[in-house]
Amino acid sequence: MFVFSFKKGWNPDGKHCYVTGGSSGLGLALAKILVAKGAHVSIVARDQAKLDAALVEMEAARVSPSQKLQAKSADLLSATASTAALEAVCELHDGAAPDAVFTCAGSSKPMFFVEMTEQDMKDGMDYGYWVQAWTVWAVTKMLVKQKKRGAKICMVSSMLGLMSFAGYASYAPAKHALRGLADTLQSEFMLYDIESQIFFPPTIYSPGYVTENKTKPDVIKKIEGTDEGLTPEQAAQGMLKGFVRGDNHISADLLTDIFRAGTRGSAPRVNFVFEAIYDFISYVGVPIWRRSVDGAIRGHREEHDKYLHLRGFFG
Amino acid sequence: MFVFSFKKGWNPDGKHCYVTGGSSGLGLALAKILVAKGAHVSIVARDQAKLDAALVEMEAARVSPSQKLQAKSADLLSATASTAALEAVCELHDGAAPDAVFTCAGSSKPMFFVEMTEQDMKDGMDYGYWVQAWTVWAVTKMLVKQKKRGAKICMVSSMLGLMSFAGYASYAPAKHALRGLADTLQSEFMLYDIESQIFFPPTIYSPGYVTENKTKPDVIKKIEGTDEGLTPEQAAQGMLKGFVRGDNHISADLLTDIFRAGTRGSAPRVNFVFEAIYDFISYVGVPIWRRSVDGAIRGHREEHDKYLHLRGFFG
Repeated sequence: MFVFSFKKGWNPDGKHCYVTGGSSGLGLALAKILVAKGAHVSIVARDQAKLDAALVEMEAARVSPSQKLQAKSADLLSATASTAALEAVCELHDGAAPDAVFTCAGSSKPMFFVEMTEQDMKDGMDYGYWVQAWTVWAVTKMLVKQKKRGAKICMVSSMLGLMSFAGYASYAPAKHALRGLADTLQSEFMLYDIESQIFFPPTIYSPGYVTENKTKPDVIKKIEGTDEGLTPEQAAQGMLKGFVRGDNHISADLLTDIFRAGTRGSAPRVNFVFEAIYDFISYVGVPIWRRSVDGAIRGHREEHDKYLHLRGFFG
Repeated sequence: MFVFSFKKGWNPDGKHCYVTGGSSGLGLALAKILVAKGAHVSIVARDQAKLDAALVEMEAARVSPSQKLQAKSADLLSATASTAALEAVCELHDGAAPDAVFTCAGSSKPMFFVEMTEQDMKDGMDYGYWVQAWTVWAVTKMLVKQKKRGAKICMVSSMLGLMSFAGYASYAPAKHALRGLADTLQSEFMLYDIESQIFFPPTIYSPGYVTENKTKPDVIKKIEGTDEGLTPEQAAQGMLKGFVRGDNHISADLLTDIFRAGTRGSAPRVNFVFEAIYDFISYVGVPIWRRSVDGAIRGHREEHDKYLHLRGFFG
């Protein structure tokens, strides 16, 4: 029998999966799927009440009494806290490093660049990049120290880690940075037999999305108007599909597939034939897409000027 | 007569150009070219002795006695310091915002991810991203407040802002982040008639490169072995050529042209025909390039394990 794929599958059954940002949205949806597939799942997030509720949902998905499920509160914005959170969830596993890590923590606050304070800029990098990078940093050290082979780390970037447009000057840099980290590690992890993967979700209809829309300028909402999003469950299914298949760059919807093909860089290909087609679509289609976005922004100039005056920007 | 290019030229003569990282390498080479073309040039960097020497070189390139040339010492790692440095160089121009800004400041410290300390990771983002982002942030506010039309801001990323490989886990994320910022602003700046551009240089044989090679792991040197670099003068000429032409993504050597075409994302095209060719080369060639890089890294496993033991990594 011919085998057309060289990529090994991956089975969550009996594996210890560490999911950050696991109390809601994509992280929780993913945690529940992993539990239903027999994994030991540890989630961390900040809010204890949300964690408690999430753990109840995870328990409901349990398929075996031997599964170890836990939910711990942690702030992941520093190296120290991220290391402590990792060590805390590994205690239940006698200190052994996790088999799979999914860094789903993060949030976004779209707004106009000229209105961003120093804190807004820093928050963008903290909640878009460091909240995941510190966990990756801590986990990698642990995996290499324990000489654990075959582990997988999957970060969560965004379609805005592949492209960007107005409104995301604090978020897109952080999501691009995650991509830079994942692509570096994809190469470097060959030294240790660890895999680095990264997911680029489109809009996810999550609690975070609701929060994000509160500060999102109208012109951005207009640009995004036609984009179709995914439910957290759809996004988690798509993420896990690519994760299991071993895709280094994972996308779960056609629009992101196309952007991914047009900005693949040096990342390993998912499918040489499909990506050539998507790349062609991207080559021809993206400039057309750009034209409509550019038009929307240029058409917003006058209104934006009035808006800045009203906000007292000109002093 | 037919005009095949829709892009306006840009002439440095009489313009105020603000160059960060202007005391050495790319920044200094660029500053001297701008002076020779009649611009008022302000450079900032940290080291006063280097600034003094740079100013002497700039004075030697002067073409008119009315040119205002200055060199000021500043640390650009915070919003406050970057704003202060900007305001200081604008004093000589009665507080008017610069016509063109080139953020050439930055440095890189390649090393293995598992050996990076918390400080190494933070430094990577500080010296790769924030050292430029804060200036862009401060300049943009100033330009928009003064309603200055037609200004141009050019950041300096790296070929490692388009792709990455082992050794650059603190640098590639920062250089990718700059790209995310530039692409966001390219779109958002349409609200103000400002232009956001970004340069992706390959290896530049600068003082920074000499420093960087001191910590660079051997396996990385091996991967980079065949890459040809540019002198600071060559890089500055290439950067300025793309800057004048209005390219949003600027590259100055064939290898980066190819990587740029293969990871253009939603950025405006430089040349629809050439990029299609480069994209094809990238599509076929990059996986071949990857194979040799992957081979070099995999072949380094055993030696790396010995190295980590010697360094006491396993405790």
